[in-house]
Amino acid sequence: MASLPNSQCMETANSPNENTKPTINVACVRKYIESMPKNLKSKAVETVKFTKKIGEDDPRRIVHSVKVGLALTLVSSLYFFRPLYAGFGQAGMWAILTVVLVFEFTVGGTLSKSLNRGCATLLAGALGIGAEYLANFCGDKGEPIVLGLMVFILATSATFTRFFPDVKRRYDYGVLIFIITFTLVAVSGFRVSEILALAHQRLSTILIGGATCILISIFVCPVWAGQDLHYLIAANIEKIALFLEGFGGEFMSFPENEDEKSITIDSDKSFLVAYKSVLNSKTTEETLANLAWWEPCHGQFRFRHPWRLYLKTGALATECAHHIKIIHKYVTSEFIKKIQEPCRIISTESSQALKQLSSSIKNMTFPLPETETHIRTCNAAANDLKIILEKPHLPDQDHSQETIQLLFLASVLIDIVKSVENISVSVNELSQKAGFRQQNPKAEKQQQQQLLHRGIVQPVNNFDISEDSFVVIDIDVHKLAGGQETLAQAMEREKLETRS
Amino acid sequence: MASLPNSQCMETANSPNENTKPTINVACVRKYIESMPKNLKSKAVETVKFTKKIGEDDPRRIVHSVKVGLALTLVSSLYFFRPLYAGFGQAGMWAILTVVLVFEFTVGGTLSKSLNRGCATLLAGALGIGAEYLANFCGDKGEPIVLGLMVFILATSATFTRFFPDVKRRYDYGVLIFIITFTLVAVSGFRVSEILALAHQRLSTILIGGATCILISIFVCPVWAGQDLHYLIAANIEKIALFLEGFGGEFMSFPENEDEKSITIDSDKSFLVAYKSVLNSKTTEETLANLAWWEPCHGQFRFRHPWRLYLKTGALATECAHHIKIIHKYVTSEFIKKIQEPCRIISTESSQALKQLSSSIKNMTFPLPETETHIRTCNAAANDLKIILEKPHLPDQDHSQETIQLLFLASVLIDIVKSVENISVSVNELSQKAGFRQQNPKAEKQQQQQLLHRGIVQPVNNFDISEDSFVVIDIDVHKLAGGQETLAQAMEREKLETRS
Repeated sequence: MASLPNSQCMETANSPNENTKPTINVACVRKYIESMPKNLKSKAVETVKFTKKIGEDDPRRIVHSVKVGLALTLVSSLYFFRPLYAGFGQAGMWAILTVVLVFEFTVGGTLSKSLNRGCATLLAGALGIGAEYLANFCGDKGEPIVLGLMVFILATSATFTRFFPDVKRRYDYGVLIFIITFTLVAVSGFRVSEILALAHQRLSTILIGGATCILISIFVCPVWAGQDLHYLIAANIEKIALFLEGFGGEFMSFPENEDEKSITIDSDKSFLVAYKSVLNSKTTEETLANLAWWEPCHGQFRFRHPWRLYLKTGALATECAHHIKIIHKYVTSEFIKKIQEPCRIISTESSQALKQLSSSIKNMTFPLPETETHIRTCNAAANDLKIILEKPHLPDQDHSQETIQLLFLASVLIDIVKSVENISVSVNELSQKAGFRQQNPKAEKQQQQQLLHRGIVQPVNNFDISEDSFVVIDIDVHKLAGGQETLAQAMEREKLETRS
Repeated sequence: MASLPNSQCMETANSPNENTKPTINVACVRKYIESMPKNLKSKAVETVKFTKKIGEDDPRRIVHSVKVGLALTLVSSLYFFRPLYAGFGQAGMWAILTVVLVFEFTVGGTLSKSLNRGCATLLAGALGIGAEYLANFCGDKGEPIVLGLMVFILATSATFTRFFPDVKRRYDYGVLIFIITFTLVAVSGFRVSEILALAHQRLSTILIGGATCILISIFVCPVWAGQDLHYLIAANIEKIALFLEGFGGEFMSFPENEDEKSITIDSDKSFLVAYKSVLNSKTTEETLANLAWWEPCHGQFRFRHPWRLYLKTGALATECAHHIKIIHKYVTSEFIKKIQEPCRIISTESSQALKQLSSSIKNMTFPLPETETHIRTCNAAANDLKIILEKPHLPDQDHSQETIQLLFLASVLIDIVKSVENISVSVNELSQKAGFRQQNPKAEKQQQQQLLHRGIVQPVNNFDISEDSFVVIDIDVHKLAGGQETLAQAMEREKLETRS
């Protein structure tokens, strides 16, 4: 970058009066700015655009930044207001340190770091005072040696515990603060009474900093890691559903001319790309689950919500996305016409099932019984596919390369059906453990009583059908009906009968 | 856990002499310890075993812990030795903070944090002094308002930059330190001259802490992130090679009775599991590459070693591992006998090629020309496989379920061959960009001159065949020979001729 050509743009009037200040030639400066390298301008524009995009992608980022600014300004006022400053002195510094190091994007993150910091400071402070007290007995010469030895042993062993996976995941920051505090207290060279006064000061400022962070983090537009995980899993399942829906759509319509085809693909482009983010979602999911562990009860989430089940469902969704990655390349293949019908059914029905499972998570309700129907239809189509493929007289046996691809595609589709079934089982488990609501229980209750009345479903027990015990009934009907027709099947037949 | 039953184990002699101290009944205590819950003992034993395992898995962890202890003890001596203490006063605290927060497992990590901390402190300190200077003009009442506003704006915008992916990856810690230092300096309420003295003190202690970390980290058993990445990629490729070797081995020998079979699988168990770590290696690879970016020239690694190419090779290896995951379930299948020969060739030749590529990375030498031969053999076998599968009269056409699985397996094997080829191309690129050594250049030079002499390979240029220009020749021969026989092909034919 060229430096500003001061000499050319500054004009000193050649008058004998030495007080004349140099004036700036405006036209010259404007010319210089205009001649600035264009790529510099475009780079600035790019940066601004990028910054805007980062903010637009997740506006909570802007809110978080403002929250940190607010917390820091509030804590700085410890310095500004002299009465407070007189009380805390230089210890006010610790409040600022605490705010910057502890304030995280999610409530879980902030709580995790605050609690780690608080507990580690208390524990290490107490140990440090103990060490100082012990070292006092060793005389003036022995004291630094004993203290040095204790610092060495404690720092070494505490650092080693950071390699334990459990410690690393939850208490890493606490161990760091533990080492710092112990060393500072043990080594400070103060007498125990002085240390206690100092400790009181520091602990209260750390408490003020930590409390400020926690309060602002929880009460000003909170970002809950648990909620994020919840919606992430739902969104991932929906992305897979959208891909399968689009894939099924491709099977249904093979346009005659090339132009139409390209339009179809262009308009559906988003579903082709969206599922890819599911492939690399694992690390984010695990981080969110770890942070969610610290979060208190919020909204419909309890303190010990079954976050592990979200991870399980997420892992199954990722597996399904890997299968989808394999069939992705066949989206525009002509040869899939040959097994068009079963493939279309599998794609669209899987997509329906996944959409219902996704919205079941999103709304925190039990999955609809229709989901099971969709999966059953899928399984039937998969069986059809197997039968078609097992026929020795496959159409166009001479295009063998295509036949292989066809068989390959079919077997992956069958894997996808299995995956969807696993996801369904996992979501069902989640909805029970996490205490999801029953969907529209009254209407369902009426329908079930009607079925019972007409003798389609065998009542398995004589219990009272109240809204509260609905979950239990639903499971028992499914479990105990055994070889007989299940509730969902009966409801499906009921629907078909009313239609005809 | 039951509490120690003090009352039972303490005996006070019922004598009139009140000075009699209570004595401890040793037998009683022993009995109590013996009756301690067994699961507590076993838990303690388990923890010790686990700790031992963590240390044994990577002994560098123990060394690292000792290094941190050493650095901290050294820096603490700032406090112990009074002459030094008089110079630095309480600022010695910053050296301790710096050591604990900056000392990381790898040299790259330590350098990254030290440099971030140093630069951010300098920059934020200067800005803070500027802010303090400006605020002085606003009078006693205006000063805290202006300073508060500046802290708010700077903290908010700096926190927002932490969401930029590039900043997050490299300068996250620096931004944190920047916010802390700026706030502390701006808000401290000292006059500028006082701040300068304080800044001098703090900067020198931070420098002492940072330098101690960097020196110990580099000169006492250094752990280079770059070297770790290098060996990780080589190990991942080798793991895939071992699986394929074992898989090929299974094809070769189908034992008659069940007992023998189970023995074969048991003894080969490690290769069946080892490749799985490759599936989730991506995050580790990226972290190591980010840290390696900070490391200076060490051993055979330059300052700007092409780390991105390691990531590319690693990603291809992961892709190959995903293919392997699919064929994993067929390891014990009987039906693979039907395409035994091409499958065996693909597995063993791919394995050979991958082993050579892995050892080429490990030893930092150019891949052997034989690697290309193995890949060519693989490709030929893949073509054979395609031809076998395209035959309409597949053996046992009636076992159609098996036929589908067979076709599926075959198509995945063909994908694996492609993957291996891609890995080979990537390793070749790496070996050129990273300046790997030519393997046994003299012998190869002789062989090449012999070939040139016998007119098998057309010399493409009149340049002097010196050892230094060997890399260039090798590429040019391959590139320019065009339709003619390549050097490697010629060498292969040469070998076959000498054998016969």
